[in-house]
Parts: sequence; structure tokens; C-alpha cells
Amino acid sequence: MKLTRRGETGQEIPVAEIDGVLYDASTVGDFGPSFWAAGGVQKLQKLAEEGRLTPIELAEQVRYGSPVASSSAVICIGQNYAAHAAESGAEPPENPIVFLKTPNTIAGPNDDVTIARGSEKTDWEVELGIVIGKTTAYCESVDAAAQHIGGYVLANDLSERHFQLEVSGGQWSKGKCSPGYMPLGPWIVTGDELDPADLGLRSWVNGEPRQNSRTSDMIFSCAEIVYDLSQYMQLEPGDVLSTGTPEGVAVSGRFSYLKPGDVVEVEIDGLGRQRQTYRAWRK
Amino acid sequence: MKLTRRGETGQEIPVAEIDGVLYDASTVGDFGPSFWAAGGVQKLQKLAEEGRLTPIELAEQVRYGSPVASSSAVICIGQNYAAHAAESGAEPPENPIVFLKTPNTIAGPNDDVTIARGSEKTDWEVELGIVIGKTTAYCESVDAAAQHIGGYVLANDLSERHFQLEVSGGQWSKGKCSPGYMPLGPWIVTGDELDPADLGLRSWVNGEPRQNSRTSDMIFSCAEIVYDLSQYMQLEPGDVLSTGTPEGVAVSGRFSYLKPGDVVEVEIDGLGRQRQTYRAWRK
Repeated sequence: MKLTRRGETGQEIPVAEIDGVLYDASTVGDFGPSFWAAGGVQKLQKLAEEGRLTPIELAEQVRYGSPVASSSAVICIGQNYAAHAAESGAEPPENPIVFLKTPNTIAGPNDDVTIARGSEKTDWEVELGIVIGKTTAYCESVDAAAQHIGGYVLANDLSERHFQLEVSGGQWSKGKCSPGYMPLGPWIVTGDELDPADLGLRSWVNGEPRQNSRTSDMIFSCAEIVYDLSQYMQLEPGDVLSTGTPEGVAVSGRFSYLKPGDVVEVEIDGLGRQRQTYRAWRK
Repeated sequence: MKLTRRGETGQEIPVAEIDGVLYDASTVGDFGPSFWAAGGVQKLQKLAEEGRLTPIELAEQVRYGSPVASSSAVICIGQNYAAHAAESGAEPPENPIVFLKTPNTIAGPNDDVTIARGSEKTDWEVELGIVIGKTTAYCESVDAAAQHIGGYVLANDLSERHFQLEVSGGQWSKGKCSPGYMPLGPWIVTGDELDPADLGLRSWVNGEPRQNSRTSDMIFSCAEIVYDLSQYMQLEPGDVLSTGTPEGVAVSGRFSYLKPGDVVEVEIDGLGRQRQTYRAWRK
């Protein structure tokens, strides 16, 4: 099943694609924490099988909102690809490195991004995102942790490197939380329909390739990340875990940071593609 | 005005104390983001003046819940007291250091705390918390930032030092997010009724004094913190900013970490006192 949210900002309707047919999912509810907590995917599947969902037609140009309607937390993993850790000047981590973004960073996949006021070092990061399917604490094994994954989503973990690294005292969140700095989507694929072990993930700036790696290069797998985090915090239904970015970002020194007018595209096999135009901040 | 939430977990009712009288604030709504966004304090004040609020009597033993009903983000400042930075082995920061806790760490001020499974280094941190009163981004001055403070609340920013410092790759959130590790309350005092510039703040373990400082020792004041953060992120109504802890915590090496059966008390002038009994984790 694929889950999208379509329509203008703040007026999106939840849409489920089941066996190639688009359905209005409003009767089950928007794709926020309570959808996942109440077994929304299973409800939609059952309603579709019983012929009780309303098919919907949508022109491709209807805006895609973030397929995550709201989230209690956006939890990110740092330096989870060995080659990216190296380009950032760090050793590969022995344990998953955790930092958080505020949930108000979440934006639609193709929305314009306003570069933060004063930013000279806004950087892209294509990432595989996990959507948590149920309350998760103290998983007893990696296999058990895998059962808590509700789905997967494409993310662009936008980062402001001056904010993150030079005025932060070493804690990264300051450079991760500018408004709109977490485009998600276009869709969530439910966990039963995607194997995250070896997906290609890529990014481009103005059509020029930047990142081009595979999730098989992740140091910690999706299930290992859920297992590890669950030892330290309780993950809630609808929470987003972003699993880190591969090499090929601007902080490496190999590329320029983003400026007004730039276009960033990011893509993961099976999870679609995002395209954002970057704009200058205006009062 | 003082705001509390009283009753058993999940069944708290919002209560406002105005000119020494307790009122049921349910007609205006619970003390979450929409209360602040909709000017809830001003509404309550007006209703009280018009005699349109219902007084309520509550026995002191009725449980205090967190006076923050829900929050989009819990944002913390690290090493904001020079003496605490020193006991942690760090230089005083040049800029506010920001990390986040997940909102599901919020608990009532006197609720038992379950020590995280496997924790041997759970530590207390008495802190002055700010509750954000309205949407806040790109404040133009420290004075302007001060106008965005809705109120103040006592916080205990519980920390697991092994999780925070030894298995985290240097990012602190891993040791800040165990369930229940952010007791808040007993009450919020609205910003018009408390000057945060020079408040005593103290903590005790089993009745023995631990922390005993004043907010005048903060490196960055409350308004300076709001101003600084607003340059990097958008603060939402109801968000909690915790402004850092003074010296006298266990990570200094001068005191033992918390163990089952311990009782922690924390207190700030004008913001009341918390008392938590610590329990072992059980499946």
C-alpha cells in the first residue's frame, strides 16, 4: 500500500493506493499518529477488500503534501554511511548517533524551500525515512524491532552547516530545524511492500549528480536502528526516523552550498522523487 | 495567573488560579499548543473578570499532572551555568547549545520515575522552563523575544549519562529521552507575574542538598535564549524551552547516581517544588 496526502497546504486529503487503485482514505483518518496507533493500514486493506472505500481520481499536478500528517518526533541518525562519515572528517560510529529535528520542519516533497535567514551553508541530504507503526520501547531483538516499522518514506534532511557545526557547541539540532527543512514523500510505502536492504538513493543539484549510493552501505540497518533507539527512548506511532545520508553533500567541500534559484532533486528506488526550488528568505 | 492540570494521568482537568481563586478552565481548553495559540490566558482573564468562570475546590492531594498538556517540541539548553559547564569538564559556551527531548518524556511533577532499563547513571537537573506563548521566528531583538514567553515552569531534565555521553557519538539526545525523564510543574506562572532574572533553584536527593544556585548565574538569559533559537528554528505555542542546569549533579563525580528507592526534590522560587520516587524498571 502507498499512502499520500494530496491538495493545497493544510487542506490535504489522505489517499491510499491499493492494488493500483487510488482511494480516498478520509473515512479512516489522516495519516498522523492516531492512524498508525489504530491500525489504519489494516483497516484500509479490509475496507478495500470489502469494496467499502471510495475510489478517487487525481490529476498528477495536484500537490503532494508530506504523507506524514503530523509526528510527535523526527529522529535522525548521523553518519550512518561510512563514506559520508569520512567526508565529514569522522570515524564510522560504533553506535547509532541520534539527534532530533522539530516536527515543524516537515514539508511537502516538492514545496519551495525558503533558505533560512542568514544561511550561507544550506546542504541537501537524501535519506531513507522510517515511519513507526506502533508504540516501541525496549525491543528484545532486531527481528522484533522490524515488526514496529509501519512504512518507509523518502526524506531530504536539509542542514545548515554553519548553524549545525560552528555556533552550536557541538550539538547538531541547531542546524537541522529551520522551517521546511524536512521535505517528506511523495508517498509512504507500507513495510510489507518494500525491502529496505539494498535500495539506490540519489540526489542532484540543478540536474548535476551529487549523491549516488545504496542503502546496503548503511552501517546500521533500519531494524537495527529501531532496536537501538528503543533501548533509550519510546518511539510513538507516526514518528519519523531518518536513517542518515551517504556521501556527496556540500559539507565535504566538493560542492557549493545551495543558493536562491537552485533546484534539488532526491530519489530512492521505490519511494519516488522530490524536486524543490530554493528561495531567498523575505520578511 | 497560575495554570495547573489536576487529576489522574490522562484525565487531568485544566485549572487556572486567578487572584487566589481556583477556576475550572475546561471551557477555554486544555493547556496545549492551541490554548497558547488562541490567547487562552487572555480569555481566562476576561472570563474571570466577567464572573463567567466556575470556581473549583480541589484537595491538595489531588494529583498534579504536567501543566503542559502537550508540546510540539521540548528544546533544551546545555551548559548554561558557568559552574556546571566546569563540573562537566567544558568551557562556558559562546552560543546557546541546543538539544531536544522527545515530548513523551513529559511527566507530572510528583509521579514516580521509572529508571530506564539498564541505566546506572540517571542524573537530576533542576531547570527553569519557558513555555512559548506564540509562534516565534526571527525575533528582531532580545526585547521582542521576551514578548513571546507565555510562562515559566519548573523542570527536572533527567539525564542518563552513559546513554548521553558514552554510546551517543557526542550527540546528547540519546541520554535525554527515556520515558518520564522530563517532570514538569506543579504549575506554569504566566510571564507577566514572574521575573526570571534572579530566582533561587535547588535540588535534593533523599533530603540531602545537591544543587543550590540562582538564575542570575545563567550565561544566556531566558529572553536571550528565545532570541537566539528563533534565528535557527520556529518555536511553536506551547513548546517548552528548558534553560540549563546549575552545578551539583552526579556527573560531576561528587555524588552517586540515582538508584531505586531514591527520592529527588527540585524547587525554584515562585515555581513550586517537585518530589519523585525512583523505581526499578520491570517488564
